[in-house]
Amino acid sequence: MQDESYKKSKAEMLPDPVVCTVDVVLLTLREGSFCYALVPREQEPFQGVAALPGGFVHPAEDKDLRASAERVLRDKAGIQGVYLEQLAVFSGVARDPRGWSISVAWYTLVPLEALQAALATGVILREVADLGGLPFDHAEIVRVALERVRSKSTYSSLPVHLCPATFTLPQLQAVYETLLGEPINKVSFRRKMEELAFVEPIKGEFDSSGAHRPAQLYRLKAKYRSRLSLTDRGMNSGG
Amino acid sequence: MQDESYKKSKAEMLPDPVVCTVDVVLLTLREGSFCYALVPREQEPFQGVAALPGGFVHPAEDKDLRASAERVLRDKAGIQGVYLEQLAVFSGVARDPRGWSISVAWYTLVPLEALQAALATGVILREVADLGGLPFDHAEIVRVALERVRSKSTYSSLPVHLCPATFTLPQLQAVYETLLGEPINKVSFRRKMEELAFVEPIKGEFDSSGAHRPAQLYRLKAKYRSRLSLTDRGMNSGG
Repeated sequence: MQDESYKKSKAEMLPDPVVCTVDVVLLTLREGSFCYALVPREQEPFQGVAALPGGFVHPAEDKDLRASAERVLRDKAGIQGVYLEQLAVFSGVARDPRGWSISVAWYTLVPLEALQAALATGVILREVADLGGLPFDHAEIVRVALERVRSKSTYSSLPVHLCPATFTLPQLQAVYETLLGEPINKVSFRRKMEELAFVEPIKGEFDSSGAHRPAQLYRLKAKYRSRLSLTDRGMNSGG
Repeated sequence: MQDESYKKSKAEMLPDPVVCTVDVVLLTLREGSFCYALVPREQEPFQGVAALPGGFVHPAEDKDLRASAERVLRDKAGIQGVYLEQLAVFSGVARDPRGWSISVAWYTLVPLEALQAALATGVILREVADLGGLPFDHAEIVRVALERVRSKSTYSSLPVHLCPATFTLPQLQAVYETLLGEPINKVSFRRKMEELAFVEPIKGEFDSSGAHRPAQLYRLKAKYRSRLSLTDRGMNSGG
């Protein structure tokens, strides 16, 4: 498909260059609070200001934009192999002082355990209610990410990515309740989990830390590590 | 926010340029068949091949990517003021022979009436089941658009944008059924329309063309022309 004639005439054919970046909204739970990650910016503009982990697209290095986002997560937060989904594109003449720009925004949900190294090397967590002081249009990007994640949490397995490798059903329910911002009836939650069928019990493993009898430990099924289990009926719609 | 120092040093700071384009999946109904629009490409690569309406982002001209998509729709299909939503970004080294590229894809739903001028000047309609022979990754872009539109049709007002300015409820129901690919119970459809509340009867206007008694004519409420009415319960989930 490569043709030298396109390459030669590229300079004439293409309009002014566009600044192409990726930004990642990294979400986690810290002591029951829903948080997003920030990293102090190393360069101007906004040098030193806490911003979403992001960076330029590197055409020579990245296969595609997912690879760009994975590289940013690896370089700036030291994590890889996590659930990562495209959010939306933010664009225009006004959002970046360097010029007309495109930021392709991604979001990822990560258990706090996976962030220990990142937190030790400068990554900051902030509660989602606080969007003050963010550079560029990062507050808007976080807002759109929260809306998407909350919406998807009503009908999918998405919140499980905030859980550690093993968890009990009450722990999973608490994660859903934090994201949805309201209590869920235990019986309908169990029914919904059976329908979505993305977790499996770990034979013979129980959590004995609670005050009640030991609770069965579960894990995410391997096939749902990189894609969601979906239902067409919401969590709180009587299903 | 503009700072001359960024502009001066831009050439050093920015990585290799990325080819930035927009592509629009324009969907319509022709005699009850769900179709998408194609336009013969004027230039290489794939000159003369029928492709999605699209083009380069023009930083000097477009305020943002929505403006780019609106310009493409205006220039290539002669339409404006339609419902237009961002779909996803398609990217990478392999999808365009001109180099590492980003295509920000959009979708729009348009009544056939609005396309008469476009159809007279070279725009082609093709049924959505036929994705053969499309250039670049346009077949994948159409596939993702169809999945999104069908999914959103189960819980929103989206399909109404395929209707002409005035329509009866049976006509609206037929549009939903075509998109969902299955019949909908009339009583639950009426209940869903009442819940979504995005249409209003036009006082004193009836459609007398059918074999039955004249049917009330409806129109889309003004406030839902550019945003959707949503429900958290799907069209076919017993709601």
